Amino acid sequence: MEKGLIDLGAIFLSSATAVGRKEKDGPLGEAFDLCDPDDRFGCKTWESAESEMQRLSFNTALAKAKCEEENVGALFAGDLLNQCVGSSYGLLSFDIPYFGLYGACSTCAEGLLLASILVSKGIYPICGAVTSSHYCAAERQYRTPVEYGAQRAPTAQWTVTGAGAFLIGDAERDFPVSTGVTIKRGLPGIVSEKGINDANNMGAAMAPAALDTLVRFFKESGTSPEDYDCIATGDLGFEGGSILEDLMRAEGYPMGDRYTDCGQIIYDRKRQDVHGGGSGCGCSAVVLGSHFLPRLTKGELRRMLFLSTGAMMSPDSIKQGESIPAVAHLLEIEAPTQGGTDHG
Amino acid sequence: MEKGLIDLGAIFLSSATAVGRKEKDGPLGEAFDLCDPDDRFGCKTWESAESEMQRLSFNTALAKAKCEEENVGALFAGDLLNQCVGSSYGLLSFDIPYFGLYGACSTCAEGLLLASILVSKGIYPICGAVTSSHYCAAERQYRTPVEYGAQRAPTAQWTVTGAGAFLIGDAERDFPVSTGVTIKRGLPGIVSEKGINDANNMGAAMAPAALDTLVRFFKESGTSPEDYDCIATGDLGFEGGSILEDLMRAEGYPMGDRYTDCGQIIYDRKRQDVHGGGSGCGCSAVVLGSHFLPRLTKGELRRMLFLSTGAMMSPDSIKQGESIPAVAHLLEIEAPTQGGTDHG
Repeated sequence: MEKGLIDLGAIFLSSATAVGRKEKDGPLGEAFDLCDPDDRFGCKTWESAESEMQRLSFNTALAKAKCEEENVGALFAGDLLNQCVGSSYGLLSFDIPYFGLYGACSTCAEGLLLASILVSKGIYPICGAVTSSHYCAAERQYRTPVEYGAQRAPTAQWTVTGAGAFLIGDAERDFPVSTGVTIKRGLPGIVSEKGINDANNMGAAMAPAALDTLVRFFKESGTSPEDYDCIATGDLGFEGGSILEDLMRAEGYPMGDRYTDCGQIIYDRKRQDVHGGGSGCGCSAVVLGSHFLPRLTKGELRRMLFLSTGAMMSPDSIKQGESIPAVAHLLEIEAPTQGGTDHG
Repeated sequence: MEKGLIDLGAIFLSSATAVGRKEKDGPLGEAFDLCDPDDRFGCKTWESAESEMQRLSFNTALAKAKCEEENVGALFAGDLLNQCVGSSYGLLSFDIPYFGLYGACSTCAEGLLLASILVSKGIYPICGAVTSSHYCAAERQYRTPVEYGAQRAPTAQWTVTGAGAFLIGDAERDFPVSTGVTIKRGLPGIVSEKGINDANNMGAAMAPAALDTLVRFFKESGTSPEDYDCIATGDLGFEGGSILEDLMRAEGYPMGDRYTDCGQIIYDRKRQDVHGGGSGCGCSAVVLGSHFLPRLTKGELRRMLFLSTGAMMSPDSIKQGESIPAVAHLLEIEAPTQGGTDHG
């Protein structure tokens, strides 16, 4: 068959991020666009706060790109809440066709990949991709309410309170504002399951999925890790990231210092007590939007691979004794050839 | 901006459906491919049974189309279970790139639309779309376990136990087997919310979304209801379907007898005690796959509009007092010009 690799010609017009206090206090804190220090964003519930972060971040992405809502052909969005209500309520006020996604923490790359396909193939000139997660909403839904004070396992990851929104344009067109950063190729992930059934060690469950996508990408594209300044997964955290490095070395693709993980860099491991590192649909979105994209626009990075990884279980499936299936979607991202005009 | 309408050139290679006992006992019972009379499909849990229906229906769709797994470029799948585990576990055994979707009961049309875009634009020659729901799993998750014997509201809908799988090919290519039925155009839905917050009346919440998509379609395409033999929503049920007929008449697009709803025809209303009619991601999928597609292949229908409608709330969002957002995605489907070669 035709290979899985997809040639794309998509450009990041803008990105915007909204985060909570812990993310603002972290090493990337200065980079985020919006923050509410009490993590509530003026809402009564954590779930509504998550929706509000989506609304605010997408609104900000529109403003940065000087783009009107009616010029966006479609939105791809998802989150971790049951029935993805963070997205359906968060983006309700926008009069834009809506494709709801569920890819757990892989949703950021999944949405960007689908948005890039639609703009690259001339379906719509501009599409949006938005994802989010909220620590307190996720703890309550997946584990126990934060107020219970449950002890965390050493490998447990910390769900990022944050939303990231992106506007993606057809690279063949001219836009008033653009970061100049392009999505050149994409590779959708295959769901795999390797027997891990500990929901406090999702990094271990997701590492084999990231391995599978990376190895398929290098084989199909004929590239190798050395061709990239940076290979970033999001969000295997410390445990999963370390496993992936070992697995890649064993497969003959050592990644060395160019490898990092969004969940490893969003918090200060020593100071912020986050155990296995960050996770959540918001994690890779805010790190891509506010850390990697600006670095690409400035030319500090020339060419990178970005993978979002998702653990596709539910609390019920774990209780029923099932293992954790996982998936990782990949994007090849390049800096502008002559510097971006304006970073969104 | 460019209009929302998407020109497509996609063909249904095959479809396959798996259902439970109540669906088999209904008016369309003879049409379904697979049935397990105890609704368990050999599994210990309702959730696993739902996954197994996805696996069986997709496997059967592959066999009907004489298609090998490695020739399928990507799968689009979703369901109603938290974190969409019906799909992630159900399709885990297939080594095919996976895009997880969440559109509640709109997921069938959402997946078909995205699969059609990818094949029409030459990304992959063949894509799959699979959706499912299970009555017992849905009752337990959304309302109360069936064993509690809770009384049902008159407008409450009955979640279909069923899965539908479709293989979609690029209409420009030749395939060994095809139904000949084509997807000509598609229109993604916009999420709307009109103040309905009764989770036992989702038809009323979804009718305005179906109205919005239909009216946009007729305006953008320059067609009218008379141009179609059949306009089928899935699944507004009796209450929502009746509201949609009224709303469409008021907008100047009376649909008359050509209108139907998958949730209205899958069960016998008098004999099967289903109150508001059928619903669930499986409802429109099994009715399209085993009822409408064969009728199109045989030429009993020449041209139809198919809309799946989804209510995008969660049990938690309802408890928090939120209204129900809804979305409806549309496909324009045509019979083969000279009859299909073989219905899959």
